[in-house]
Amino acid sequence: MLPGCPLEVIGVVHTARTTPATTPVQAALNRAEQGTVEIFEAFAQGLSGLEGFDYVWLLTWMPLASGSQEMPAMIQVPFLLRPQGRTMGVFATRGPQRVNPLGLSLVNLLEVSGRTLRFAGVDLVDGTAVVDLKPFVTRFDSPPEVPRCGWFDSVEMAEAVTPADLDPGLEGEP
Amino acid sequence: MLPGCPLEVIGVVHTARTTPATTPVQAALNRAEQGTVEIFEAFAQGLSGLEGFDYVWLLTWMPLASGSQEMPAMIQVPFLLRPQGRTMGVFATRGPQRVNPLGLSLVNLLEVSGRTLRFAGVDLVDGTAVVDLKPFVTRFDSPPEVPRCGWFDSVEMAEAVTPADLDPGLEGEP
Repeated sequence: MLPGCPLEVIGVVHTARTTPATTPVQAALNRAEQGTVEIFEAFAQGLSGLEGFDYVWLLTWMPLASGSQEMPAMIQVPFLLRPQGRTMGVFATRGPQRVNPLGLSLVNLLEVSGRTLRFAGVDLVDGTAVVDLKPFVTRFDSPPEVPRCGWFDSVEMAEAVTPADLDPGLEGEP
Repeated sequence: MLPGCPLEVIGVVHTARTTPATTPVQAALNRAEQGTVEIFEAFAQGLSGLEGFDYVWLLTWMPLASGSQEMPAMIQVPFLLRPQGRTMGVFATRGPQRVNPLGLSLVNLLEVSGRTLRFAGVDLVDGTAVVDLKPFVTRFDSPPEVPRCGWFDSVEMAEAVTPADLDPGLEGEP
């Protein structure tokens, strides 16, 4: 359930998604679907005050989605560029095959009940390890002007699109 | 320079700030000050395409700022609430004393020159280890409506405020 992670795991994500290839690539492209985070007992007190926030950053550890390679390629074809076959440096992508497979998901917090968070916006496979939660703060997390967003500014992003949608060769992958 | 980190360190931050107590608490509150990130040679190719983005998330490892305790308190008084002495669960704060001392800084990328990134928006002490870079993508990283931001909605945030400004007792701390 929780593959070896060099960080302290504070909780686990529960969603209806069972394989990375069939999990939407970004929470913002799949805002309606709901999931939960179960925070482990030892960290439950740390949730106090989180109920006042509408959005939360989930920092996750994604070895399942990152493949089996020790070190990923520095130049990759991101899922959203598979149709065009364009390459990009790994740090100009949001893909899971990173040097450190840390995920950053912005989710809509619907309810805090005990040590369970119910959220909307699913881009994580069931069983993903959570290593930190941070409240979304507009003043800290939004550029003061409309920023250039590189290749994302000119790419099509379909609602709830998955890696397997963008690259049919991934269909059978776990 | 780079204290023990369980993750692969991809680079290092250079700023004019030498102690956590005198480093502004958030990049967004100190947008004018500049710094650089030096990405290590092994990861330099991964920067390709990043020059098209105006903003970048720096994911950092902040043991210097997180104190010496093995496990931080789950209930804390965040820097910005020190004047009032109000407590908050650690996951409802953006402070550095976290279970995993992972920092998330949104910086304005000014220039990519070889494997050096010049940025504006300093909330990191000189020598901080960088463990990931992700491009800021408005579509992914912005809530679709104006969100509630908990206690941050009612707290005063002065430009370039530091922990030592908010809690004079920290003045002498490293």
